[in-house]
Amino acid sequence: MNAKNLNISTGGIRIILLNEKDAISMNLKQSDRVSIKAGRNKTVAIIDITNDSSLIKQKEVGIFKETKDEIKSKNGQKVEIKIITKPNSIYYISKKLRGKRLTEKEMHEIIKDITNKKLTDVEMTYFVSACYMYELNMKEIVAFTKSMVDTGKKLNFNGRKVADKHCIGGVSGNRTTCIVIPIIAAAGYLIPKTSSRSITSPAGTADTMEILCEVNHSIKSMRQIVNKTNACLVWGGSMDVAPSDDTLIKVEHPMSLDPVGQMLASVLAKKKAAGATHCLIDIPVGPGAKIESKFKAFILKRKFEKVGKAIDIKVKAIITDGSEPVGNGIGPALEARDLLWTLNNDKRGSTKLLDKGTYLAGKLLKLLGEKDPYNVAKEIVESGLAAKKFNEILVAQGLKENSAEKIKIGKYKVNVISEKTGIVKAISNMEISRIARIAGAPSDTGAGVYLKKHHSGYVVK
Amino acid sequence: MNAKNLNISTGGIRIILLNEKDAISMNLKQSDRVSIKAGRNKTVAIIDITNDSSLIKQKEVGIFKETKDEIKSKNGQKVEIKIITKPNSIYYISKKLRGKRLTEKEMHEIIKDITNKKLTDVEMTYFVSACYMYELNMKEIVAFTKSMVDTGKKLNFNGRKVADKHCIGGVSGNRTTCIVIPIIAAAGYLIPKTSSRSITSPAGTADTMEILCEVNHSIKSMRQIVNKTNACLVWGGSMDVAPSDDTLIKVEHPMSLDPVGQMLASVLAKKKAAGATHCLIDIPVGPGAKIESKFKAFILKRKFEKVGKAIDIKVKAIITDGSEPVGNGIGPALEARDLLWTLNNDKRGSTKLLDKGTYLAGKLLKLLGEKDPYNVAKEIVESGLAAKKFNEILVAQGLKENSAEKIKIGKYKVNVISEKTGIVKAISNMEISRIARIAGAPSDTGAGVYLKKHHSGYVVK
Repeated sequence: MNAKNLNISTGGIRIILLNEKDAISMNLKQSDRVSIKAGRNKTVAIIDITNDSSLIKQKEVGIFKETKDEIKSKNGQKVEIKIITKPNSIYYISKKLRGKRLTEKEMHEIIKDITNKKLTDVEMTYFVSACYMYELNMKEIVAFTKSMVDTGKKLNFNGRKVADKHCIGGVSGNRTTCIVIPIIAAAGYLIPKTSSRSITSPAGTADTMEILCEVNHSIKSMRQIVNKTNACLVWGGSMDVAPSDDTLIKVEHPMSLDPVGQMLASVLAKKKAAGATHCLIDIPVGPGAKIESKFKAFILKRKFEKVGKAIDIKVKAIITDGSEPVGNGIGPALEARDLLWTLNNDKRGSTKLLDKGTYLAGKLLKLLGEKDPYNVAKEIVESGLAAKKFNEILVAQGLKENSAEKIKIGKYKVNVISEKTGIVKAISNMEISRIARIAGAPSDTGAGVYLKKHHSGYVVK
Repeated sequence: MNAKNLNISTGGIRIILLNEKDAISMNLKQSDRVSIKAGRNKTVAIIDITNDSSLIKQKEVGIFKETKDEIKSKNGQKVEIKIITKPNSIYYISKKLRGKRLTEKEMHEIIKDITNKKLTDVEMTYFVSACYMYELNMKEIVAFTKSMVDTGKKLNFNGRKVADKHCIGGVSGNRTTCIVIPIIAAAGYLIPKTSSRSITSPAGTADTMEILCEVNHSIKSMRQIVNKTNACLVWGGSMDVAPSDDTLIKVEHPMSLDPVGQMLASVLAKKKAAGATHCLIDIPVGPGAKIESKFKAFILKRKFEKVGKAIDIKVKAIITDGSEPVGNGIGPALEARDLLWTLNNDKRGSTKLLDKGTYLAGKLLKLLGEKDPYNVAKEIVESGLAAKKFNEILVAQGLKENSAEKIKIGKYKVNVISEKTGIVKAISNMEISRIARIAGAPSDTGAGVYLKKHHSGYVVK
């Protein structure tokens, strides 16, 4: 067979393309695994089949970029193809599909192969479906978490206490992270925080922070920021901690799946890999939040704390009110402005955001062993130390904007006036999110919704 | 955005490729659906994302062949991309993933979208997993079957009785189909048979028949063959009956899955679409066969007959001995030679193959309403009418070889002599299959295993 380099990247697994006739005569099927050898270089690749002879003639092998990078094939070079057996991880996935439990070794093998891009999207989808339908038990979740940690990069801070926090999401304008981090850092603890961008919400913490400073940092640069300020607030996507998680998210996205076991593993693996020793988990509960019932939230809380214990992180999970948006602004720029006002004790800030942020910081300080933690947190905010620390972090990450007034908000606006006089009974997270997204958030950073009233607020027609 | 035609076929769904930066700024994720418009032509495509700017620069859209065929994009042409909502079938798949039952309308929508290549491999994999883990009930299987029939081509034979037979597989050298078909045709009934090629066995019926005659025929040519001879024995792959089945098989292959509900739907949909009114199903049972327990075989038998009734085919399912290979030859050429010897009442033929074939033909004749069906079948064989009819079919399909002696068998051979004197207690289907495949079958047509002894046979050291 002769190589034909296609100069196309699949963004993942190594693939080679065969003409249908060759595939039939070699008895190879779509997604079969082969070893391919060009000169002395050899790798494993997955078969793709075409009946388009203008692209791949018989006796030709189309080489995608990832495969070419491995075997350094030249156009027209002779290559040798041999069918090989499936990796063991396939059998373990198949075992889980039949409703069986996976051992630590089996789970590790699956996660290792996902990390090394040895499994196809279809194979990973079977794994995700199986984990979704046959919920993972505690042993499996712990094995999953450990495997995710072991197969990625790890940070460590020489035995120092490292704090972290995480919110499982589902509530708009919930930027408490940006209040908690400067408080903890100002209290003298390390808190290197990585955040995600929005997937289905109007803004993720990374999207909001990006209005104020640079958030794309390498692990090295992140360390320098933490050394300077005790903290950071960067985007976690380029860190390569628990990389299998990002790969799995791709196949979960089309169905909007988020199996509980996998969510637990993903959250705690990232914390562990980032060196966390103490971690606070915020579980907002309410209609329209990710978790709608207190009972389910309680089960989840227990699981978080158990897995944390098994992987040697002190985890405290708390159940908070998720029935309405936390801050006033929803959308990257509106949230960033909110944040600066709130931290600077400006009266335009959001009381609820400040209260929740300070409360969470107190909880985390308590977990870290601080005496009188709630008063410590409160004092750090009221004295302006939190605002000062936050500004330090912005500068260390690469300041873009630290004046609330200068943040660019979208040009067009509509004021929505209540049609009745009375008291606000409920606010729908989902509808507010939807409106903010339709307005253009998060890609249009200035777009969003600004709430003048919250739950129990008085409105006049 | 400017079009860049990639001249690459995906062999299925329509795909466009975006630069990662554009995807982020448009808030598009891998596998999102968009509408794409070039001039007046518009279609729906799935997003693929690359970070390789040498392939797709910012503001460029890579157009795969299937998409280009729809929108006739020219290189550099301005195209417009808009995000669109997911098809309803995705929500139905998600419903099944949560363990709910699907209605007829929902099932139809899924199968229709699979047939029209509107679902990605990942989405189809979720469907297959869900059907595997939450077994389909009778209503769902019937809806599945009807949808498969309705979304493909259909044959009809003007109200005449049309016979068919199917074996669920798993037993080597089981070429009874080639005995049954000429008997039924010689008895005066229509029996247009389509067969598959081997997937995991050393030979499928189509592989064996291909040694003797052409098996690739269009529906039109198949009709002509049936008009001439009452029967045919062609490869079903190019017929476009129940096309969704072939699409689903692709995502089942990596895990070697074969969910029962889907198997029932697939088999009976193909029979229904091919115009069958009477159908015999052979369920071989034994260690190493596809079905190992009589109890499971019985459940399956009942399901086949029930689904048959619901789609208006008279189905008779019978449980047969699947504990050892049926014929002597295993592998395309060895089986073809076996077949000619057997049909021609040559003493080198296989008694077991002849007996089973004649018995199955009798069962099918009985289902068709024939009186004294077993004797009719026996007489057709003994009088040489079956052999004559078989030859007619070979000629009508395009004869390659009808002399057993002239069939080319592999050059190299090893005789395996028993190490003990005694009686054969068991023969492993799986091991025999494995050896035949390792020898090269089915792609190397002359390769395989030839059994001199069967179960209960006397062997001398």
